[in-house]
Amino acid sequence: MSTIFLRTLRENPADAEVASHQLLVRAGYIRRAAPGIYTWLPLGLKVLAKVEQIVREEMDAAGGQEVHFPALLPREPYEATGRWDEYGPNLFRLKDRKQGDYLLAPTHEEMFTLLVKDLYSSYKDLPLTIYQIQTKYRDEARPRAGLLRGREFIMKDSYSFDIDDEGLDVSYAAQRAAYIRIFERLGLEYVIVQAQSGAMGGSKSEEFLSPTEVGEDTFVRSPGGYSANVEAVTTPVPDAIDWSDAPAAHVEDTPDTPTIETLVAAANAAHPREDRPWTAADTLKNVVLAATNPAGERGLLVIGVPGDRDVDLTRVEAALSPATVEAANEDDLKAHPELVKGYIGPEALGPQARPEGVELDSEDDTAIPYLLDPRVVPGTRWITGANVHGKHVFDLVAGRDFVGDGVIEAADVRAGDPAPDGSGPLELARGVEIGHIFQLGRKYAAALDLKVLDVNGKQQVVTMGSYGIGVTRAVALLAENNHDDLGLVWPIQVAPFHVQVVATGKDQAVFDAAQELAAGLEAAGVEVLYDDRPKVSPGVKFKDAELLGAPYILVVGRGLADGEVELKTRASGASENVPVADAVAELSRRVAEALAA
Amino acid sequence: MSTIFLRTLRENPADAEVASHQLLVRAGYIRRAAPGIYTWLPLGLKVLAKVEQIVREEMDAAGGQEVHFPALLPREPYEATGRWDEYGPNLFRLKDRKQGDYLLAPTHEEMFTLLVKDLYSSYKDLPLTIYQIQTKYRDEARPRAGLLRGREFIMKDSYSFDIDDEGLDVSYAAQRAAYIRIFERLGLEYVIVQAQSGAMGGSKSEEFLSPTEVGEDTFVRSPGGYSANVEAVTTPVPDAIDWSDAPAAHVEDTPDTPTIETLVAAANAAHPREDRPWTAADTLKNVVLAATNPAGERGLLVIGVPGDRDVDLTRVEAALSPATVEAANEDDLKAHPELVKGYIGPEALGPQARPEGVELDSEDDTAIPYLLDPRVVPGTRWITGANVHGKHVFDLVAGRDFVGDGVIEAADVRAGDPAPDGSGPLELARGVEIGHIFQLGRKYAAALDLKVLDVNGKQQVVTMGSYGIGVTRAVALLAENNHDDLGLVWPIQVAPFHVQVVATGKDQAVFDAAQELAAGLEAAGVEVLYDDRPKVSPGVKFKDAELLGAPYILVVGRGLADGEVELKTRASGASENVPVADAVAELSRRVAEALAA
Repeated sequence: MSTIFLRTLRENPADAEVASHQLLVRAGYIRRAAPGIYTWLPLGLKVLAKVEQIVREEMDAAGGQEVHFPALLPREPYEATGRWDEYGPNLFRLKDRKQGDYLLAPTHEEMFTLLVKDLYSSYKDLPLTIYQIQTKYRDEARPRAGLLRGREFIMKDSYSFDIDDEGLDVSYAAQRAAYIRIFERLGLEYVIVQAQSGAMGGSKSEEFLSPTEVGEDTFVRSPGGYSANVEAVTTPVPDAIDWSDAPAAHVEDTPDTPTIETLVAAANAAHPREDRPWTAADTLKNVVLAATNPAGERGLLVIGVPGDRDVDLTRVEAALSPATVEAANEDDLKAHPELVKGYIGPEALGPQARPEGVELDSEDDTAIPYLLDPRVVPGTRWITGANVHGKHVFDLVAGRDFVGDGVIEAADVRAGDPAPDGSGPLELARGVEIGHIFQLGRKYAAALDLKVLDVNGKQQVVTMGSYGIGVTRAVALLAENNHDDLGLVWPIQVAPFHVQVVATGKDQAVFDAAQELAAGLEAAGVEVLYDDRPKVSPGVKFKDAELLGAPYILVVGRGLADGEVELKTRASGASENVPVADAVAELSRRVAEALAA
Repeated sequence: MSTIFLRTLRENPADAEVASHQLLVRAGYIRRAAPGIYTWLPLGLKVLAKVEQIVREEMDAAGGQEVHFPALLPREPYEATGRWDEYGPNLFRLKDRKQGDYLLAPTHEEMFTLLVKDLYSSYKDLPLTIYQIQTKYRDEARPRAGLLRGREFIMKDSYSFDIDDEGLDVSYAAQRAAYIRIFERLGLEYVIVQAQSGAMGGSKSEEFLSPTEVGEDTFVRSPGGYSANVEAVTTPVPDAIDWSDAPAAHVEDTPDTPTIETLVAAANAAHPREDRPWTAADTLKNVVLAATNPAGERGLLVIGVPGDRDVDLTRVEAALSPATVEAANEDDLKAHPELVKGYIGPEALGPQARPEGVELDSEDDTAIPYLLDPRVVPGTRWITGANVHGKHVFDLVAGRDFVGDGVIEAADVRAGDPAPDGSGPLELARGVEIGHIFQLGRKYAAALDLKVLDVNGKQQVVTMGSYGIGVTRAVALLAENNHDDLGLVWPIQVAPFHVQVVATGKDQAVFDAAQELAAGLEAAGVEVLYDDRPKVSPGVKFKDAELLGAPYILVVGRGLADGEVELKTRASGASENVPVADAVAELSRRVAEALAA
């Protein structure tokens, strides 16, 4: 402790909001170099190495072979798959001295695909799973929470290559099982949720989320076992309703009702229903958004959702990926006088509102796509805008009076919503994505022409999976999930050392005994940090030990005169006196048992 | 071997000129991703990991503490030390989404300095040596020879921090000793040479060069133990000569003598000496060069060297670092009519040639610096240009008739030149820089304000050393120094595996026995690659084993019927029959012995 490159801090760093970030900096594990870019100090690097080693062992056990790709890569392969553009501003791009375009890789699907293409040519070479543990780059708009969302970070990414879909299922299952073992060995709680594939493309994907209040991702679970992130939740579609006896739509004056709340109140006051009061769920809210594609082209769209729901931009972006989406601004609305703010209605939108011959994607760029929530099935009746200031239309029937250009999962997901598989009401929770596994299928292999000869001697496009674990993020989550008011509380499998030996007082005999105990423990295979600082008070030493978070703290002090030392367990706070002669044997037994557990 | 991600190639890759590059690609250790940027395949990664581990162990043993810095760094620290500009086009620069300037670090002096400044504040915290093994970037103008000169590569860089020069000497010596142990454990031949500090700055530096014909660096050695790279060789300065009885300078017609050779011939024909013929060493050659500083400003200079020597641009660049230097072009000469091509002489150059009041670095940018070889001491007499076409001046005496603006080590170093320390004639050899150690002194600490309190409570600027090893380059040199016509011949300490077990023929009993031997060897701690391919001929299997380069090859084939297997030693080519029952014990004993050696 007197020579280790470490300074503990009593105060939280100004820019740190979540506990893991605060504690990893205060305890001297990491240090910020730039926004979202961190330096690893000696203790942090030890934790990182242990996490990497667990990941590596399980990848190897699952038949993965380790390779290592460059971080600096030429543009061409990413151009071929469209990701050079799709990644938008999240990609760090640069030019070399010859003005060649390069990028700092956010993920390596292209390079793995090309490497396999380079080396392999036959179905006999497959299946293959290769992986790397490597530094990746994403120019996040809002790097946050220390290692939780960084711009330079370490990922384990693996890729499977199979001749057919059945093979992909097997490779995918093997990686999925390895992920479960990894997170269990790390002692990291996880939930596996269905996910959208997003910019990655492909068919099936699942996320491993670590549940935590500081998570940015929301996910759902049902009592029957359904789980998904909110982007992937699908809405059970109600049956269509016979509209043959529905009244004709009628426009009513609804002055000063620019919001759903005012509209419902006005409807109940001036046009009450007989069976029950109108509610927000009876209204159809039409929300104007602007989507920007990776080429920077910006266009408007309108989404119709039941008035008791908000539009969830995260879900809209997942549905429209790789476009980004924001609320339309005043200028957007001015450019489209048909959109009457607060009174927008379906009759000015969708296919029926367009002059004959004008279709979406035609040269007429005034055509705004109109997308509907899945609940707006044919026969549903709505109160909605009449496209005139101060007026709404009642009994407007979907399918009869209006149609949309398509359906979109845009409405927010709420606790109590039914799971799409009928497994009961959903509950919501927050988490951090710690792993993501994808059945990519043939997207990358086709784009980069990775084919092998099949059993019949025919060229066959290979099918792929890609599988990522955020390694540096895992360190942050381990800290987030294992801390208390005093500091970090590392699980022994990833602790930078197993025991902190603390010598207190000024008695040289105490320091000699502590030194001997530390040496004895190290000889027994226990990893020790020995606090040998001569002029530091016991209080400061205990505070540092608690902050650093070793599983055990062995205090050598006054009790030594009676032949005893004090053994503290960091997690439980339990403390007991142990005969000094037994301390090495007792502690090394406990450490070995805990490591084997 | 039937599942390992590997394809051996029979042909050398078109872009590979040196053996290590050819063989590492052919044997499936590395693969090019872009110029100077390589992917590590499974076997290569195993060698790399072993080299890294040896480096790590010796750094730890020398008291170094491992940390890890980002590769992507903000501009500011490098701006503060001037290196943002000094690195010129060798630096990969990029902008983030907020238009902030970033770089991919070529080396980390600034960041280490700032980190220590951040954590430490007292002389009691020192000495400190911290290191990392990390990916670095340099946008080399001519990446070459595979891993020997790459643009993305792995370095071990360590940095020492001391309160005073004596401390720096101790830290420097500890790193130097660790380097010696590392290269000896790696089995990598090395020469320690005096070096220039170049862009790194600082006072003392030494290079570890691995002697090899494919090296780009030239170094010298003397019988008495002097060694230096050519940039660092200093010329013994002769004593000044009394010029009191020297004849006055006289201009002679020397038509058609634009070269030293024609000039010497003309002088001997028309103006012969009495004691001996004129030689090129009697002439003074004035060479016009153009230097460009990191800001891109280009200026001319003239260097005067004895006519029997060439100007060595490598030495000039080292002397003028961080400027780059090239020969002047026709336009340069046209802009300066006083420089008469082929007949340039000192009398139009140097301080005495300038109008009064015009000095170097004055606003008058026509003033061209004139730098002289150290051999041009006062009293030496020269035949040199008379600044008139077809005329030379004889008996022009240095110090009497001309002076320079300074002295420069620009002339080429030749075998037989005297060592500057009087230790005998130099011999020249080629090598590759594999390590470089610098006494930086206070340059970085002063620029970045790294001060600590000294024993008297006064703020003191810290003194630093920096120490680098090219880790990926070491892998290339190990391959370069350990190969033959058949392939690689790894030293056992870094071999990807210790033995390749080869099963030949079609007899299932042979494959069963080979499998059992491989398992037995692995159980005994021997690292095995088992060639289990069923339909591959023995010839192909042997060729692959020789190409891959494991220290031992164990062949299981026909001899099995007689209870024997064949044990080949890759390096010597020796082959012997071993009873199959003894094979595991015998081979594991040999491997253990070789590893312990």
